[in-house]
Amino acid sequence: MPRDPQYDILFESIKFGPKTARNRFFQTAHCAGPGSERPGAQAAFRGTKAEGGWAVVFTEYCSIHPESDEYPYTSARLWDEGDVRNLGHMCDVAHGHGSLAGVQLWYSGGHAPCLESREIGRSPTQFQSNMFATRTVYGSEMDESDIRSVITMYVEAGRRAEQAGFDLLEVSAGDDTVPIQFLEPRYNQRTDRYGGSLENRARFILEVLTALKRNFGARCAITARFEMDTLHGPEGVEAHGDGLKLLELFRREGVVDLVSLKIGDYAEWGEDAGASRFRKSGWVTPFIRQGKAVLGPDIAVVGNGRFTSPDDMVKLVRGRVLDFIGAARPSIADPFLPKKIEEGRPEDIRECIGCNICVSKFNQVGQIMCTQNQTVGEEYRRGWHPERFAPTLQKCSVLVIGAGPAGMECARVLGERGYVVHLREAQSELGGHWRWVTRLPRLTEWERVISYRRTQLQKLRKVAVHLGVGRMSAAEALSYGADRIVVATGAHWRGDGAGPGCGAIPGADASLPHCLTPEQLMSGKAIAGKRVLVLDAEGHFVGISIAEMLADQGREVTYVCDASEVAEYGVFTLEAANNKRMLFEKKIRTYRNHWLSGIAPGRVTLTYLYRFGADLLEPRAGALPRRDNGGDFELDIDAVVLVTSRASDDALYRELKARRHEWAKNEVQDVYRIGDCKAPMQVGQAMWEGHRLAREFDSPHPQWPLPWIRERQLWGNETVPKLGDARPRVEGD
Amino acid sequence: MPRDPQYDILFESIKFGPKTARNRFFQTAHCAGPGSERPGAQAAFRGTKAEGGWAVVFTEYCSIHPESDEYPYTSARLWDEGDVRNLGHMCDVAHGHGSLAGVQLWYSGGHAPCLESREIGRSPTQFQSNMFATRTVYGSEMDESDIRSVITMYVEAGRRAEQAGFDLLEVSAGDDTVPIQFLEPRYNQRTDRYGGSLENRARFILEVLTALKRNFGARCAITARFEMDTLHGPEGVEAHGDGLKLLELFRREGVVDLVSLKIGDYAEWGEDAGASRFRKSGWVTPFIRQGKAVLGPDIAVVGNGRFTSPDDMVKLVRGRVLDFIGAARPSIADPFLPKKIEEGRPEDIRECIGCNICVSKFNQVGQIMCTQNQTVGEEYRRGWHPERFAPTLQKCSVLVIGAGPAGMECARVLGERGYVVHLREAQSELGGHWRWVTRLPRLTEWERVISYRRTQLQKLRKVAVHLGVGRMSAAEALSYGADRIVVATGAHWRGDGAGPGCGAIPGADASLPHCLTPEQLMSGKAIAGKRVLVLDAEGHFVGISIAEMLADQGREVTYVCDASEVAEYGVFTLEAANNKRMLFEKKIRTYRNHWLSGIAPGRVTLTYLYRFGADLLEPRAGALPRRDNGGDFELDIDAVVLVTSRASDDALYRELKARRHEWAKNEVQDVYRIGDCKAPMQVGQAMWEGHRLAREFDSPHPQWPLPWIRERQLWGNETVPKLGDARPRVEGD
Repeated sequence: MPRDPQYDILFESIKFGPKTARNRFFQTAHCAGPGSERPGAQAAFRGTKAEGGWAVVFTEYCSIHPESDEYPYTSARLWDEGDVRNLGHMCDVAHGHGSLAGVQLWYSGGHAPCLESREIGRSPTQFQSNMFATRTVYGSEMDESDIRSVITMYVEAGRRAEQAGFDLLEVSAGDDTVPIQFLEPRYNQRTDRYGGSLENRARFILEVLTALKRNFGARCAITARFEMDTLHGPEGVEAHGDGLKLLELFRREGVVDLVSLKIGDYAEWGEDAGASRFRKSGWVTPFIRQGKAVLGPDIAVVGNGRFTSPDDMVKLVRGRVLDFIGAARPSIADPFLPKKIEEGRPEDIRECIGCNICVSKFNQVGQIMCTQNQTVGEEYRRGWHPERFAPTLQKCSVLVIGAGPAGMECARVLGERGYVVHLREAQSELGGHWRWVTRLPRLTEWERVISYRRTQLQKLRKVAVHLGVGRMSAAEALSYGADRIVVATGAHWRGDGAGPGCGAIPGADASLPHCLTPEQLMSGKAIAGKRVLVLDAEGHFVGISIAEMLADQGREVTYVCDASEVAEYGVFTLEAANNKRMLFEKKIRTYRNHWLSGIAPGRVTLTYLYRFGADLLEPRAGALPRRDNGGDFELDIDAVVLVTSRASDDALYRELKARRHEWAKNEVQDVYRIGDCKAPMQVGQAMWEGHRLAREFDSPHPQWPLPWIRERQLWGNETVPKLGDARPRVEGD
Repeated sequence: MPRDPQYDILFESIKFGPKTARNRFFQTAHCAGPGSERPGAQAAFRGTKAEGGWAVVFTEYCSIHPESDEYPYTSARLWDEGDVRNLGHMCDVAHGHGSLAGVQLWYSGGHAPCLESREIGRSPTQFQSNMFATRTVYGSEMDESDIRSVITMYVEAGRRAEQAGFDLLEVSAGDDTVPIQFLEPRYNQRTDRYGGSLENRARFILEVLTALKRNFGARCAITARFEMDTLHGPEGVEAHGDGLKLLELFRREGVVDLVSLKIGDYAEWGEDAGASRFRKSGWVTPFIRQGKAVLGPDIAVVGNGRFTSPDDMVKLVRGRVLDFIGAARPSIADPFLPKKIEEGRPEDIRECIGCNICVSKFNQVGQIMCTQNQTVGEEYRRGWHPERFAPTLQKCSVLVIGAGPAGMECARVLGERGYVVHLREAQSELGGHWRWVTRLPRLTEWERVISYRRTQLQKLRKVAVHLGVGRMSAAEALSYGADRIVVATGAHWRGDGAGPGCGAIPGADASLPHCLTPEQLMSGKAIAGKRVLVLDAEGHFVGISIAEMLADQGREVTYVCDASEVAEYGVFTLEAANNKRMLFEKKIRTYRNHWLSGIAPGRVTLTYLYRFGADLLEPRAGALPRRDNGGDFELDIDAVVLVTSRASDDALYRELKARRHEWAKNEVQDVYRIGDCKAPMQVGQAMWEGHRLAREFDSPHPQWPLPWIRERQLWGNETVPKLGDARPRVEGD
């Protein structure tokens, strides 16, 4: 189907500097990529987006020099010829799909922990890093020769970038990198010509851009990623202060071809990559609109805001808010977003839900994951394409039991591959437990997990969805007539308070009126009384969201967690700061590093987890070899919500496996399980399991994953650099 | 010099199973190694220890299967032929030095986050992991076919280990791995023949060891690393309960040739790798002695305890506490520890100080670092040997200004390389700020940083140490007569309360009686009054140690930190749990996520760092676009110790650099700086800087580090596995 003409404006080609982008879809630099260390993964990850219609694809932030080494966090790097070779492959693949390749030049001197290089970054003034405070990082204060050296680092990295084939050289002036450190009074207390007035504080970024323009401007676009507001008040950059004034300087000096705008420094990264629990699509627009107004028509502006709706995008372009639709997360959730608009099938877009699992995996230094897109990060190492599926060579019928996230995704991919699938769900709607999750405060966008799959399942002719069929017994499943059975029956929250590494809590029993599991609460079990305690060992979104929901209902809420951080996973998803702000604002009483040692009607006992002495005593039986310093205390509480741990609903699977002797006579070839019914897991992982099983359904032993390509050094292969290589000379003297 | 005959017993060769170790020095498996991913680094790291006299060298913990993937934490892996090739190189190097190579087979099913493999581990009973709670990890509960599969995983990994050349196949039964999960009631609630009685709970580990013995016992030693006490009381394994009983079973069943004993599960890792702030050398001995008594003479016992004194070691062997001196950290601090005893020069041993910086780098997923040994991790990638130094080809005289840790280390290495060195120190003793650090509670061992270097400097004929010479001026330095000058003048704590990412605190001024810096406190500045507040943004050992010291003096101490965790770096050094226990036991009032917004005599104002609302308001100038929910409060406090941030003492360096035009006439060729006077840093990093400069002192531009070998995939090189490779078959059906 041809695209809707109202979207034509999104597909106009745009020229900036010496380059022309074929449309307005611009994948801004974003993390959780494979850097320069895994070249196959990097090229396939970014290349898939180029194939899917993104006119510009970027690396993640790219370190220009070993002084800016944030290992183990994965940046790209342009340090040596090895990086040119590795990132060059990405450029080749992007160009092959008609897209431009961009690289974000990054120097975070004074913040970089340099845990691999052991170097020391340079900063405008010396300060202790708040970005990596736990790494005890300080920079060395630059003199003018240091400033020249760092500018040379940008130029040298630019040279390697051009050699690799990059079309856009973007300077990061945000996220606490050195260009914005010079702008911020909190980081720049210099008294020379690089400190004091805005003109002086802007000198560094303008000199860097001018140097890049002079050296590469004829062949590469020179661009900036600029943080209009660091969200630190007058000690940082404020949009209505230096932010807009710097953009005015950019315009006047003519040093950039394009500017990509953002807000929020590293500490406020959660305001840049806003999670849907706190920010709705377009929250940055008030800032971007003002930035574009200052930059004028000649400098192209890229703006992000978790945009997934083509109608929203058109409005932004027509409203002259921006020239390019910037996207990080939406391009992860759907690398083919532009192509789906172009092909007139916007209903096929897998919309980002803003859960920030992708960012969390960067922060955990793990393989990237996306709740919506199970192929992300698997393009090269497992050869998975988000939109193409190998037709099965062993056609057969499959019964998928349970239409929660894992079951839906498995059925979808099996359907794409040509299997005959019956997806059967006990309840009357698709989604399983995810249906109540989306009713937690501000999680409505998370419903897209269900709606995308509903649409796709409807389109697949060989997939039949049976809703409201009640729980299947093992006998029913065996005699159903399917060749193969996939069990996806999920999990439930435990009602006995058993948490990580500890047993049930005395008195915890969700069959009693004053104890509730999350499911019970969300399906209407009444709370008698005003004083509610939420016990959270999940540490992600369930406990904290329930605490907020109950506070919004006017209850007196107490939140207790075992960890040192409330809703600890929020550190990874960038929600930690706003979680704490929310608890304080909503007056939710909080205990960290505590647990319940007893629950009785109207009363609970709290225990401090570190009440034992630090000394180790002689070993003895029946007690810890430590001094018990006591200190338990009681609180008057009317009800406790037990967000402690989950347990698989695996009875059906276990019965089917125990009745293996009946398979042959029922012509059942095999039985598998996926997702929470195997082990409770993050929803993205559960769907990945469903997807993976379907992708490998004709492998010899599909329950178990096949090997993947591990990109790493193999002994005997060449290395770059080699011992004795010279240091690229950036120092002037 | 020949070795002291009283140490002969340490050099007896010991037979266990089919193998014989040439002496009693046994490097137990330990982390912060390069795993199977960086084969050159791994072989050189372990190989250097073999060269230095360790009869047995191990990998770090080694995952036997992708279901036990703890990425990004670096384990070794024996998953495929690529791992055989990479670890095979390590075995070759160890054998070349006459040592045995060991591998610790590790399966942590149910705890492994599998952030690279995306697989799901299997566990005796389903539980939420307390080891990686923030990763939201659960295992799938094993049935008997799963148990057979996991045993097969051990055997398959054993096969690859033998192929790589390993001599010892050690099964980890500790650190929450599956063998000890089966033993622990908190993890094992099974009702089949693998749960219930000790005999049942021990079945798994015995079956694993039996399978390895049967398959490889004729050619490899089969050993176990067993946790005698998990330190979790009756819910775990207690030494005086199942711990000793299991050792009795080991003896009776004859399934192991050697047992290496430990205490403390992952949550209590700080009791295994005890930091010197809480544990003195030999703290595990009461446990090991009892274990050896049960195991008897026929099963060799390895015991650790941060042993560095050969006299202590002899006592342990003669006292039949153990057969092998196990060591992890002492072998990192000095890979040549055995050789130095053998060669009759025990005074040259670089003794481990128990600071746990090595472990902290594993926990940060960084390059390993050792405060005492700057060459660690650099053996391959920079070609550094801990005991060999390239003689300089450009002999000249060097003035090193400042005999703190960085200056001492630089002078030492310059001396080893044949330079004429004058090391000049203003104070009357070596050590700089490290002298007062060692007077903090229980940090006396840290004095070894100074004493080792004092001994070495005394041995170097071309190094002259001048103490008590007062501060040098730039003029004195220039006219001193040295060809080259190294400035190592250190840093000091700021007196204005400026912390990470924030400016000075109103009222903070260390020239006033009620404000103190750490140096002022440690050099005797008096505190008037009983109520002291320690403001800690350093987050490592200074703030928390001062708080403890003041509490021990009988003061009422309040500890305030900006982080969510007290002394946050202690999470990395394994001190976090005992830090919290200490604060509770010593009744130190604690505020986390707070900062001081004002200091006045007798009174301070605290502010909660998350008092602003979670919503983002319209941008405006001069204020945060957030709602201020207030809530500051005051405390009556007599004195504040400001452990907020440090500043380099770089005035001399800057003046020397500014007077560059005077260098030639003074025949000064160049001026360098190292350590804290460049930027405040961890002491190990400061000494690394001094070491590095001296190693590369004849490079073209020695202030700046040379490139090193980056072991990684280069595009175009082969990979293992390849797409389409089969999964190694471990499932039985």
